[in-house]
Amino acid sequence: MTHTVTILGATGSIGRSTTDLLAQHPGRFRIGALVGGRDAAALAKLAREIGADFAALADESQGAALRDALSGTGIANGAGDSAVLEAVARDADIVVAAVSGAAGLRPTHAALRLGRTVALANKESLVCAGDAFMRDAARFKATLLPVDSEHNALAQALGDGRVSDVTKMTITASGGPFRTWTRERIAAASPTEAAAHPTWSMGMKINIDSASLMNKGLELIEAHHLFAIEAERLDVIVHPQSIVHGLITWRDGAVTAGLAMPDMRVPIAHCLGLGDRLTIERGRSLDLAAVGSLTFEAADEARFPCLRIARAALAEGGAAPTVMNAANEIAVAAFIRGEIDFYGIAELVERACEHFAPEYRSAPADVDEALAIDAHVRAWSAKALPSAA
Amino acid sequence: MTHTVTILGATGSIGRSTTDLLAQHPGRFRIGALVGGRDAAALAKLAREIGADFAALADESQGAALRDALSGTGIANGAGDSAVLEAVARDADIVVAAVSGAAGLRPTHAALRLGRTVALANKESLVCAGDAFMRDAARFKATLLPVDSEHNALAQALGDGRVSDVTKMTITASGGPFRTWTRERIAAASPTEAAAHPTWSMGMKINIDSASLMNKGLELIEAHHLFAIEAERLDVIVHPQSIVHGLITWRDGAVTAGLAMPDMRVPIAHCLGLGDRLTIERGRSLDLAAVGSLTFEAADEARFPCLRIARAALAEGGAAPTVMNAANEIAVAAFIRGEIDFYGIAELVERACEHFAPEYRSAPADVDEALAIDAHVRAWSAKALPSAA
Repeated sequence: MTHTVTILGATGSIGRSTTDLLAQHPGRFRIGALVGGRDAAALAKLAREIGADFAALADESQGAALRDALSGTGIANGAGDSAVLEAVARDADIVVAAVSGAAGLRPTHAALRLGRTVALANKESLVCAGDAFMRDAARFKATLLPVDSEHNALAQALGDGRVSDVTKMTITASGGPFRTWTRERIAAASPTEAAAHPTWSMGMKINIDSASLMNKGLELIEAHHLFAIEAERLDVIVHPQSIVHGLITWRDGAVTAGLAMPDMRVPIAHCLGLGDRLTIERGRSLDLAAVGSLTFEAADEARFPCLRIARAALAEGGAAPTVMNAANEIAVAAFIRGEIDFYGIAELVERACEHFAPEYRSAPADVDEALAIDAHVRAWSAKALPSAA
Repeated sequence: MTHTVTILGATGSIGRSTTDLLAQHPGRFRIGALVGGRDAAALAKLAREIGADFAALADESQGAALRDALSGTGIANGAGDSAVLEAVARDADIVVAAVSGAAGLRPTHAALRLGRTVALANKESLVCAGDAFMRDAARFKATLLPVDSEHNALAQALGDGRVSDVTKMTITASGGPFRTWTRERIAAASPTEAAAHPTWSMGMKINIDSASLMNKGLELIEAHHLFAIEAERLDVIVHPQSIVHGLITWRDGAVTAGLAMPDMRVPIAHCLGLGDRLTIERGRSLDLAAVGSLTFEAADEARFPCLRIARAALAEGGAAPTVMNAANEIAVAAFIRGEIDFYGIAELVERACEHFAPEYRSAPADVDEALAIDAHVRAWSAKALPSAA
């Protein structure tokens, strides 16, 4: 059976891993639509290589460049918001939602409203508007498959089990580059040091979130929404080898876990399989005897206050995670520019959470409201930076 | 909903752990029948404590003692083969089949033929007569739930997945007391040294099987039958902490695993839950940060030839596992008596396998045939011992 795949964020890291996998399984997949950001040449090349029906760029100004690059291929194309929504509206058995950042909310939500099966790689959808996303997923009978290695591992470890039988869901953290550093040394860390992720190759922003453990905080919030499980039953454990990604502790004392080499193709392949697992190339699979040792340690919220702040935002609920995420975006950018030190990130985020707590109590009712809160908090946070004084 | 539980082997180690769990969940379970071996006092005490409907001893000569010990309790009782079969025939939602050794075959098989849900702790059922057991389980619509921690972990890690999607099922071995010993040192080991199991508290015979890794070989044979998976997709890995019990490698590169503290109550509780997990006492659950490190190493068939022999018997199929198991029983007993050295176990087992290969080609057609082969091989093996010369 051939499944039609649409990829939102086709030229990004998750998009590339996805097209890698699709190319390994010719005949099993048809590419419905590929959506990119602003790189017309990259999107056109990809569309030619894997043979998409439709290609769309979010950046309207690059429409002509895309049209030229695809001329003579027969691949329909367009640019701008309407082209992106046209891409989403095309029939697909699975939509890989891998646009990063707040820009991913609208197209991902549009796919949900069409009742699609959505392989979700956009963190912000659940962090900024989780209640609205899950409500609409249920309402429009959409299926959400988690692409994040941690949530994908939890989904596999959960299997056909019931969340009501779960005592605890635990996601693992590599611990980032500062895992063994003292608080004093972390306080003086440079952006380059913070971005040196030990096990995963990702972007600058996400690497710094890994260093601060904010990334794990965001993932706890995502897990809360994906699995309808409350903050008290969610936990983080530091596991430097990044082999075990998620663990389910059952109320009878049994534990099931999801493991894999740290390679995003594994969770993506799980999603793309749609219940009929793909076959991945030999030699990529986990060899525990070769790995030798898996170590675990408690996460230290004293050295990594962002984890504490994220847990508090999750426990608070309502718009707290939306506010926290927006402030973190601004704080991390300021840290990268050298305007604040590493602990200045947590400090700004905490100030923003406190500032907006009275104003934004209830969860954003929809994507528009989530984006409005996001924009407002970003503006306030930018003004709250030392450089704005 | 109240479930009726019958326990075959109620006064043994698995039986005790089972009644421990049942006592923790008053109201959820009714005890149908308890079957013991020859200890009338122990069985009567247990039956009084947890309130069974019926108690049976396998040893007919202890019938009067049991009757006396239960007089005035209203607990029906009996002794001998017919009483055991009466116990099995009583209605039950789950039968815990925990009689050890070849004696467990007939009552376990009787439960299968009644279409019961059987929590299987008797290794010999599948090792000696696996083809017949699985054929009859399917024919009489019985359900087999694995109690062994390794197979239970595999069942939990498999979840609702398909065995056709599995690349490899791996069971873990603690490595036993000789894990780090040289071949020379192992060759000179005493029975006491061999029986010193690092993580599990079990009987002498099973501890020595753990030291030789024959235990893992038997478990591979069980896994083959339980999950209908061929020898090539089954593997053993040494994991001294005995926390990860079984792992499933999927063809898309994902791995799911079953973990738990080394406590038989966890897999037993999983079976007893019948899809609605029991709640185990707090404080017994796995804390990976406290455990700290999980290590893995390849199993060494040069130092542990019994694993190689068992793999060969599994690959050979037919009656080879039946023969191997019988010879191993005699060899281990001789080792315990000091008549042969540790590597003499593997040597005798291998000789028996070679000797009987031409005679016993096809798998035992039924329990009678399995028991006949077992008896024949035991007699031959006893005569093949140096002490018989």
